[in-house]
Amino acid sequence: MSTEPTIQPTAAEDYVSAELYTRIQQFYADQMALMDHGQAEEWAATFTEEAVFPAEVTGRAGRAASARAHAEKLIREKADLRHWLGMLDVRPQPDGTLLTRAYVLTARTVRGEELRITASVVCRDHLVEEDGRWVVSERSLRRDGSA
Amino acid sequence: MSTEPTIQPTAAEDYVSAELYTRIQQFYADQMALMDHGQAEEWAATFTEEAVFPAEVTGRAGRAASARAHAEKLIREKADLRHWLGMLDVRPQPDGTLLTRAYVLTARTVRGEELRITASVVCRDHLVEEDGRWVVSERSLRRDGSA
Amino acid sequence: MSTEPTIQPTAAEDYVSAELYTRIQQFYADQMALMDHGQAEEWAATFTEEAVFPAEVTGRAGRAASARAHAEKLIREKADLRHWLGMLDVRPQPDGTLLTRAYVLTARTVRGEELRITASVVCRDHLVEEDGRWVVSERSLRRDGSA
Repeated sequence: MSTEPTIQPTAAEDYVSAELYTRIQQFYADQMALMDHGQAEEWAATFTEEAVFPAEVTGRAGRAASARAHAEKLIREKADLRHWLGMLDVRPQPDGTLLTRAYVLTARTVRGEELRITASVVCRDHLVEEDGRWVVSERSLRRDGSA
Repeated sequence: MSTEPTIQPTAAEDYVSAELYTRIQQFYADQMALMDHGQAEEWAATFTEEAVFPAEVTGRAGRAASARAHAEKLIREKADLRHWLGMLDVRPQPDGTLLTRAYVLTARTVRGEELRITASVVCRDHLVEEDGRWVVSERSLRRDGSA
Repeated sequence: MSTEPTIQPTAAEDYVSAELYTRIQQFYADQMALMDHGQAEEWAATFTEEAVFPAEVTGRAGRAASARAHAEKLIREKADLRHWLGMLDVRPQPDGTLLTRAYVLTARTVRGEELRITASVVCRDHLVEEDGRWVVSERSLRRDGSA
């Protein structure tokens, strides 16, 4: 176990509504599936224009290019990659934005080989509303096993 | 990454209600647990009579027989098998039925051996309502790593 | 597959409301994250004072001490451990308490080594309300692969 941000336990008044919680669950199911199916532009549109993700990539065009390169690499490797996100925590902020925390696992299957669970990650996002949709404005990942 | 159906990104108006989303989550928790606990008849009843699943099996009696054979095989192998379903997407259709897409992982533990994650699958279902319950009328599975 | 309690299939009237279902999902996301982040006292407070968990440990102080020892062991081993809970079933009881059943997977990553999924467990809890919060009064775990 490493030095990580302290978890603020969920007080009774911290529980978010079913409508909000399931909307964010649906947002992530969509975002992960778009990535895993190589839909680079659609995936890039689940972030704000200004977001910096992955590292040092900003702007939707740059983000889409990065996702496209990643998808093409998977095709060359004959690999399917699935991002699972779970154990979701959602905290509304006074300004109407959301801070989320979730666990992510990646399942990678190369044709003809055994499936491998390649990474366990804690994902912390800042979500903002744009045109009635939630999008990620900031993402911070902490991979298990890193220093 | 292989050729797979394109994901239709979730537009703001595509999000389903919390009531529907959690109902389908509960449906799958039930369906997977029934399978994993060897309750063949109850599992078979989570499909329509006409559904063809698994491959070439139709009718609830045939489906139950197939599930029973599978459960008995696990007992002989001293194996526990758990189906995890997540990253759920639910799309209501104009006729009131639902199309769903989800990721499935299978965790298999043989007594005295290490647990193995044996498969990652994308599951696409057509759900219809029968007597106030959702049941699967069509299921299509695409296993990661297949051609 | 081993001898386990029979699953009561979810009848149409058994589905719980979205508000209750997502509240319990949030409860578990919180409880697992507190454990995995080594917050022993906060984790211990997600059980009743009288609960016996882990085996033979009772009282929040004893439970916190047990969790603290576990967290310190992980630090010494340079291991991150993540508890995933899913496939959740929630059954309200006539006295207003809840019986839940869920699958749990543990993902363990030691610095410099590959991630391992170390256990698959079926978790059955009895939840009671205390001061407007759900807490665990009884927990029974059945680890896959055990006799």
